[in-house]
Amino acid sequence: MSWVQGAAESNYGIHHLPYGVFSTKNDPTPRIGVRIADQILDLRMIVAAGTCSGCDTCSALSATTLNPFMALGRDAWTQVRGQITEALTNNEMRTAVSQGLVPVNEAIMHLPFTPADYVDFYASEHHATNLGRILRPNSEPLLPNWRHLPVGYHGRAGTIIPSGTDVVRPCGQRKSADGEIVFGPSVRLDIEAEVGFVVGAPSRLGKPVTPDDFAEHVFGVVLVNDWSARDIQGWEYQPLGPFLGKSFATSIGTWVTPLDALAAARAEAPEQDPVVLPYLKESDRFGYELSLSVSLNGTEVARPPFAQMYWTPAQQLAHMTVNGASARTGDLYASGTVSGPNREDCGSLMELTWAGSQPLALSDGSTRAFLEDNDTVTISATAPGPRGSVIGLGEVTGTVTPAIG
Amino acid sequence: MSWVQGAAESNYGIHHLPYGVFSTKNDPTPRIGVRIADQILDLRMIVAAGTCSGCDTCSALSATTLNPFMALGRDAWTQVRGQITEALTNNEMRTAVSQGLVPVNEAIMHLPFTPADYVDFYASEHHATNLGRILRPNSEPLLPNWRHLPVGYHGRAGTIIPSGTDVVRPCGQRKSADGEIVFGPSVRLDIEAEVGFVVGAPSRLGKPVTPDDFAEHVFGVVLVNDWSARDIQGWEYQPLGPFLGKSFATSIGTWVTPLDALAAARAEAPEQDPVVLPYLKESDRFGYELSLSVSLNGTEVARPPFAQMYWTPAQQLAHMTVNGASARTGDLYASGTVSGPNREDCGSLMELTWAGSQPLALSDGSTRAFLEDNDTVTISATAPGPRGSVIGLGEVTGTVTPAIG
Repeated sequence: MSWVQGAAESNYGIHHLPYGVFSTKNDPTPRIGVRIADQILDLRMIVAAGTCSGCDTCSALSATTLNPFMALGRDAWTQVRGQITEALTNNEMRTAVSQGLVPVNEAIMHLPFTPADYVDFYASEHHATNLGRILRPNSEPLLPNWRHLPVGYHGRAGTIIPSGTDVVRPCGQRKSADGEIVFGPSVRLDIEAEVGFVVGAPSRLGKPVTPDDFAEHVFGVVLVNDWSARDIQGWEYQPLGPFLGKSFATSIGTWVTPLDALAAARAEAPEQDPVVLPYLKESDRFGYELSLSVSLNGTEVARPPFAQMYWTPAQQLAHMTVNGASARTGDLYASGTVSGPNREDCGSLMELTWAGSQPLALSDGSTRAFLEDNDTVTISATAPGPRGSVIGLGEVTGTVTPAIG
Repeated sequence: MSWVQGAAESNYGIHHLPYGVFSTKNDPTPRIGVRIADQILDLRMIVAAGTCSGCDTCSALSATTLNPFMALGRDAWTQVRGQITEALTNNEMRTAVSQGLVPVNEAIMHLPFTPADYVDFYASEHHATNLGRILRPNSEPLLPNWRHLPVGYHGRAGTIIPSGTDVVRPCGQRKSADGEIVFGPSVRLDIEAEVGFVVGAPSRLGKPVTPDDFAEHVFGVVLVNDWSARDIQGWEYQPLGPFLGKSFATSIGTWVTPLDALAAARAEAPEQDPVVLPYLKESDRFGYELSLSVSLNGTEVARPPFAQMYWTPAQQLAHMTVNGASARTGDLYASGTVSGPNREDCGSLMELTWAGSQPLALSDGSTRAFLEDNDTVTISATAPGPRGSVIGLGEVTGTVTPAIG
């Protein structure tokens, strides 16, 4: 039990303790904090108040981004999580530690880490099948490689933005209905509700990471909205994949949930057929029971279930490095759109409205095929925590602003 | 005329002055240097010997990577280039400046800049046509979008390696000739001879860069070998593009040639049909007359001509940012394989051997369809400099080592 008020009833309770980077009006230097209930424990302040004269861990926790701490590896993560848990539960430490608490509503949240490479997978069988049906209606929806490897591609790391940042509607080329090539603001702006995994401990160039080493490298989890301009993407993507249809913005949650906080959320992952190649085999195969919720202007429009993803994050990391590619501290790899078997489980408007043909009804009486200017999309997720508690992942939200120029 | 011995006859003469980052056995701290003939001018040492008490430029030139200097923008680049030219031509400065010269053969070269995002284009009409003919023999070789936009995709920035670094043969999934899915070392390891452009001054999220602003943002040029495992790529790349077939390694030259050094190499770029959309229109359309040379174990196997690229680097930058994506200091975007109209002008083995069906003869009597272990590939390039001089871009070389495991 934490002595912090409200922690017991909060989705940011003592079993969660996600990391973020924040500043305040009075102190604009970004610093690392840990969220508990409606408070943020300022780790820079806690370190400064302590007696450490500058060990690696205390230096890393005094940085302006999570990268140095994430780079230290699992032993350091476990140790610090233990110390923070102790500080927030031991009543004798209450007076001292309370000095380091900052109310969430006074904090300005920043990107929690500096992204290195960004990879986006395509790991939901339901999503890949739906898109196959929509885009290639007269052929097998899943391409021949899909069940053999987790299909993925590199996205733009430099346009990863923190939750709350507006998203300017992108302009670009598209092919109009009558076959003309036109330029202008995207008219099929979409979302992709995804779960992202953040690499902490790097791997070495030339040395693949096995699925069983997943937890040695992955620090934590963030929610991701991989905004997508379907019209731009549809015209550009052959033969080298999505580019400008995606690269204008990728929003991530500002709270990184440590992998350890999701121990109780581990869940069986779907059986795979055909049997995967040995490098993708897990001795303990698991996914995570995360229940996502997507809301558009306050109306919940989808509840995508993450546990049903065909390819697990451990397999994704193994695949991404099997060719010898190294993983770096700050690498973000996302699951791809999370979609379940039913229409209302789907994490993109493309699926929810079946390419715009069946608009969604919102609670204000309006309908949406794709996103309109000033629309706000919020993705949240919960996971089971220990002893019946609930972990609420940091939500990712963004509002579409009109195209420029 | 430079007072440095050999400068007049060197491809690293006074009109070139490329930037790199080096260390020495005696001083392992990486530092910025400028190459002239067979010497490197150690800028950290020059700054330390001067009287500046720490202006932005001198601080940037004392860094361990070019990024801070590149971020300062064109005015700083022009000023420093002028000062270095003065230091290396003014005989009165010879004694003092000579103290800062380090022989090239004592230097260990590093990555000259920390890569931010890496984008690879597909800008050669001959290359795209050749690959279309090889991969889709029964249809139009160029896809419908190719003449409307510079097709490109994001690559892995974390596996960009400096020239001279060995390349471990990647392992991965491929589809064998009899349709079986197998795992193992790539059997179709290839090269792609490319020219890379390095972004110095960043652009703002939401604000596209026009083609005419190219030189305000791009700091310089490096040669690139975008190693490619054709068998891995062929099986994985639908529908999201190349991933592991490319991400194991991208080698770049360790000397960044400033854009200013290529002023005399500006050349007319091919006329475009159809007329491009306004955002891709250049008021002064130009490419660069760079003559590439590709050698395999010492035998020159190709001479790709860069001037014939259909999409110019200015158009590529404009396209990459037209959706509002920002460009960051350290972004590298490469041209894609440089290929000319004739077989011997092509920058990949895929084309030179027509997918392996017509192996190359090397001077040692052996033949090559694709790369074998211990093969060394070197890409170099020359460009016309002012007054009949020749600029030689920093070569990019690498040796293939056997797959691990």
